[in-house]
Amino acid sequence: VVGRVTRGAIFLLTDYGYGDEFAGVTRAVVLREAPGAPVVDLTHGVPPFDVRAGALALARSVPFLGPGIVVAVVDPGVASDRRAVAVRVGAGAHPVTPAPGADGGPRVLVGPDNGLLGWAIDALGGASAAVALPALPAGPGSFDGRDLFAPVAARLWLGAELADVGSPVDPDSLVRLAPPLLTTSPAGSVEVEVVWVDRFGNAQLAARPSDLERAGMGAEVDVGFGPATVRVRRVGAFAELDDTEVGLMADANGHVAMVCDRRSAATVLGVRPGDVVILRRVGSS
Amino acid sequence: VVGRVTRGAIFLLTDYGYGDEFAGVTRAVVLREAPGAPVVDLTHGVPPFDVRAGALALARSVPFLGPGIVVAVVDPGVASDRRAVAVRVGAGAHPVTPAPGADGGPRVLVGPDNGLLGWAIDALGGASAAVALPALPAGPGSFDGRDLFAPVAARLWLGAELADVGSPVDPDSLVRLAPPLLTTSPAGSVEVEVVWVDRFGNAQLAARPSDLERAGMGAEVDVGFGPATVRVRRVGAFAELDDTEVGLMADANGHVAMVCDRRSAATVLGVRPGDVVILRRVGSS
Amino acid sequence: VVGRVTRGAIFLLTDYGYGDEFAGVTRAVVLREAPGAPVVDLTHGVPPFDVRAGALALARSVPFLGPGIVVAVVDPGVASDRRAVAVRVGAGAHPVTPAPGADGGPRVLVGPDNGLLGWAIDALGGASAAVALPALPAGPGSFDGRDLFAPVAARLWLGAELADVGSPVDPDSLVRLAPPLLTTSPAGSVEVEVVWVDRFGNAQLAARPSDLERAGMGAEVDVGFGPATVRVRRVGAFAELDDTEVGLMADANGHVAMVCDRRSAATVLGVRPGDVVILRRVGSS
Repeated sequence: VVGRVTRGAIFLLTDYGYGDEFAGVTRAVVLREAPGAPVVDLTHGVPPFDVRAGALALARSVPFLGPGIVVAVVDPGVASDRRAVAVRVGAGAHPVTPAPGADGGPRVLVGPDNGLLGWAIDALGGASAAVALPALPAGPGSFDGRDLFAPVAARLWLGAELADVGSPVDPDSLVRLAPPLLTTSPAGSVEVEVVWVDRFGNAQLAARPSDLERAGMGAEVDVGFGPATVRVRRVGAFAELDDTEVGLMADANGHVAMVCDRRSAATVLGVRPGDVVILRRVGSS
Repeated sequence: VVGRVTRGAIFLLTDYGYGDEFAGVTRAVVLREAPGAPVVDLTHGVPPFDVRAGALALARSVPFLGPGIVVAVVDPGVASDRRAVAVRVGAGAHPVTPAPGADGGPRVLVGPDNGLLGWAIDALGGASAAVALPALPAGPGSFDGRDLFAPVAARLWLGAELADVGSPVDPDSLVRLAPPLLTTSPAGSVEVEVVWVDRFGNAQLAARPSDLERAGMGAEVDVGFGPATVRVRRVGAFAELDDTEVGLMADANGHVAMVCDRRSAATVLGVRPGDVVILRRVGSS
Repeated sequence: VVGRVTRGAIFLLTDYGYGDEFAGVTRAVVLREAPGAPVVDLTHGVPPFDVRAGALALARSVPFLGPGIVVAVVDPGVASDRRAVAVRVGAGAHPVTPAPGADGGPRVLVGPDNGLLGWAIDALGGASAAVALPALPAGPGSFDGRDLFAPVAARLWLGAELADVGSPVDPDSLVRLAPPLLTTSPAGSVEVEVVWVDRFGNAQLAARPSDLERAGMGAEVDVGFGPATVRVRRVGAFAELDDTEVGLMADANGHVAMVCDRRSAATVLGVRPGDVVILRRVGSS
């Protein structure tokens, strides 16, 4: 019980979905190897193979987690030569397992070295150490989430150090994804990527409110997407919007999002993750 | 461990879905604030913004729960002036945290004051006390499930009393939804709302078997929906129905449901939640 | 706490889905009856009423589980005369609750006697004992997952023996599903059922690599489905395949699967579970 409280949880984020037993078996293996570990599903609903979407979801999540170990698997390159890694974050002198009573967020992230972990590592203060996990034996019959990542996470949760589970690699050698597009022009426009459309249709942009301030934008902004431009208000709450209105709002991750009140802004505007929109200061074009 | 057993669980019901990390982060925050708390997902699959569907699912669930704290979030009015509340149910003299060994269902429900909690409160014996939670600081970056409801539930689970988390309000002032339509005519007909279509296509009605008895209905009933009428048998089990037959059956919540054997009655009949059907005693029209 | 570690977990697999509260209420009842039990969702995403798909998913899962009790419910015959059973697997002399420190997989499976449990029982070493659970009281208002299977699993987890929860039945009397089609001809062809299409579109066959060896197949195989035939390579990893290529690969369950690299082989080929394909040795036809 001391362990449960002080070791924290094992957090899972994958693209395994909910229809198959992939996520369930991964959970079960964690518990088999680390009985008593609290297992927390962050989500298994990352779109299949979408490393970028998974990396964004993970980065949005980790600032709010308690202590523990994060396992993230979105891994189109499984069984290729991509590395599998465990990465320690935060102050390098800290042991993996925090001392009793210590708090703070996750100490180690485990997953494929394909960029999935990068932005979460940044959000947790950067990588202080990393190891490459030994590859599973060649040949058929393996499933990295079940056979590699879950058991490694269990060992770390039980008190293993990074050096016990792999071979040191330079944290600077970890694969990084290209950052989302965010370009500010002096003329007062911001070209910015839609990074996420959530269940409610809110379309999160790579920009933060400070990016709009720097571009001199006021209470209204012209939003261009494809050939269309819509003038929208910046609001502080969904309820400030009329029924048929799209607005810009700072969202729960500190990003700017295009939103509607009780409707899907993404459907109204026809935007998807990866689309680029241009925000223009009113009167700047 | 005493706490785990005697304090019960923290139950979550939301419209956050499974594709995003909303539910996972909410779970993680509960565990961060109340390490060791068993977190039970009732469902996160309530249709987006559908307070009525969430309120019905919650009311169907709570009679079967053990002790603990319920967090329910279907909250189209987030960041408007709707209140956030915690509501104690059952005998007013009971403390929030039951004594060791005490059983019984949940003691406190936490969520937006938009009607979501009302029918569950009724099912648990009514509200004996309520508090309004302090609003989150104005401005961007908040997410009530993560930043308000989960932390409050954790504090209550750890032993806080209602007065520690908010300001008393009159339980009678809590917002109530309009009850589902259920009108019985002396001539032997029951006009009744379809309140739920489940995954299997069973269409639950707001009526209970006793409503049909009171209207004098026998072993067969004429069911009118839109311009169509179908004569159906009342059965005690799916297997009593022929392959192409719709029946009326008392379901696991004590409601009358329109059902088929191994097929979706809702698809066969073309009905959805919110539709109204008319049940008529055979020979009454 | 001794109990948590030594008694293992309670594993759930159902077709209840995630939209309704069925799975959540079942989880909650387990915890209400067995506070402290770790509850592990294997999946609730089995297609509605699809006993065969559920039986396959369960059989794929159980080899990787730690100790505990498995509850599986895909039950189109609920409230008919099908039996409900609890089945002990493995060496018959073992008590349900393993001794402290004992490991190994699940000891008991609980569910409807409709074939759902059969292949999982095989995978766990066969049934050493079985009991029929008492039927719920006749009449409306019951839900076997909530009212029968979950409470029985909780009692078993707490230490009850099989004889405490039902009446002995002959394990050989348990209902068995027809095995997936797998026919090898001496001429070098294998007629085989597609048993599963996973989230990523991999199409698992009932065959294992040894079946292909026995038919004398080499590095390439002709795959016939409907009127079409495709020549495919046997590969050891997704990444060996070209962008537009289908391959045969041994999958994580030791089966042969038709796969693509980062695309859905099932969509490319137009195959679904239950379809039959014919694998032919190159030059054999």
